[in-house]
Amino acid sequence: MADILKFDEQRNSAPDEKFELLHKHSLFAAMPDDMYPRFTSAAKTLTLKKGAQLFLQDDPAEWFYFIVSGWIKLFRETVDGDEAVLDVLTKGHIFGESAIFDGGVHVAGAAVAENAILLSFPTSLLKGAITKNHDVALGMLASISRTRRQQSQDIEKLSLQNTSQRIACFLLRMCRANDAQNVSLSLPYDKSLIAARLSMKSETFSRALNKLQRETSISIKGSTVIIPDTNELAVFTCSHCSQEFPCGDLH
Amino acid sequence: MADILKFDEQRNSAPDEKFELLHKHSLFAAMPDDMYPRFTSAAKTLTLKKGAQLFLQDDPAEWFYFIVSGWIKLFRETVDGDEAVLDVLTKGHIFGESAIFDGGVHVAGAAVAENAILLSFPTSLLKGAITKNHDVALGMLASISRTRRQQSQDIEKLSLQNTSQRIACFLLRMCRANDAQNVSLSLPYDKSLIAARLSMKSETFSRALNKLQRETSISIKGSTVIIPDTNELAVFTCSHCSQEFPCGDLH
Repeated sequence: MADILKFDEQRNSAPDEKFELLHKHSLFAAMPDDMYPRFTSAAKTLTLKKGAQLFLQDDPAEWFYFIVSGWIKLFRETVDGDEAVLDVLTKGHIFGESAIFDGGVHVAGAAVAENAILLSFPTSLLKGAITKNHDVALGMLASISRTRRQQSQDIEKLSLQNTSQRIACFLLRMCRANDAQNVSLSLPYDKSLIAARLSMKSETFSRALNKLQRETSISIKGSTVIIPDTNELAVFTCSHCSQEFPCGDLH
Repeated sequence: MADILKFDEQRNSAPDEKFELLHKHSLFAAMPDDMYPRFTSAAKTLTLKKGAQLFLQDDPAEWFYFIVSGWIKLFRETVDGDEAVLDVLTKGHIFGESAIFDGGVHVAGAAVAENAILLSFPTSLLKGAITKNHDVALGMLASISRTRRQQSQDIEKLSLQNTSQRIACFLLRMCRANDAQNVSLSLPYDKSLIAARLSMKSETFSRALNKLQRETSISIKGSTVIIPDTNELAVFTCSHCSQEFPCGDLH
């Protein structure tokens, strides 16, 4: 854990913005009043820099994590060392928690994609809470179901959308529901990681991005994206999807 | 429901093989003794022929299903009418149940891939059981977690395996853990559906299958597959996967 820059030993601290965010998550929101403080008092705050590795696939799961800020990638590595990025998560999400149902080991590794602040909690505490408390089990069901829904979407897109359409979809999903003309966005993390998140090699991503810029009026310079017309992007990609912009699961 | 060949109104029938299979499923196995009979007495037996459609994506979920025999495909359809096959399930699996956590609508359609016998149950009964009973909620968590794990594997394979490797993986996963030499298999359903399950167009599947037969010693005639050496297939595909044959999740 050499990558941890700061280790906050101040447990039981005064009301804190990070705990307000935590309380909104379906898992923690489901906890009874006497259980929630057991989690916040056991929480450790980790301030991690880009590249830090939290755990690998098949590691025993001692901790699970809540993201206060930054980006975390979840990945699986082949025997040959290639990496499949299953998800890239940001603030308000938890990860590593589902190992409880996977024989106590992580089914994917986790690493910091952009400098992050996390809260970590003992997995044993969560296992006990789910086993003992019905509302927590229901909160966990809501949380796992969200992941499952998103994975179904990912499989659909990998099956039916070409690489340019997948990039267009990624950009559209960053827009707000009422965005229409001249939308300016900042890419949330490195292009190489966006490529991996969309299951493309970097070279494929570059070619697909060039094609998208030729065939639509969007432009990308560095990490800034200009979308003159969201409807044009929607025409480009949404007919190859079972949803249409604005996506029902986001808005 | 014109495709239903037989509708079994014999509820509360004598101990029945299909109910023995049902009782082994983690969701039903978790039910207390006084709850399980409420499900079996509400169950309807459906005998369906290939092609029958059970529900479409976004349909309100009134029923969920347990597969006694046959194959069921779960799919999503794009605005343009293309179909992504998310899964193809056989006996011992449930489907349609997770709509409870998806706003009461199905997030994928379901159709019969090979003649099937199903048990159908009212979704309202399951919703009540999960809300009231903690063990049922835990059984549901085990069930959804299995799906999530498998979807993670699918995304990994779609990200990193080429089409021939994905076919080799599909065949290896049909083998038993101790299969080594001269294994003979029957394809479980149509090649066109195997192609769709592996997220390939039929033409791509044919080319990939030819390549696999050129580069390994396997042979496929009709629906019969001969694998002279499982290790040869494992060398071909497993280095491009985070698991190795025999896959830990199957054996």
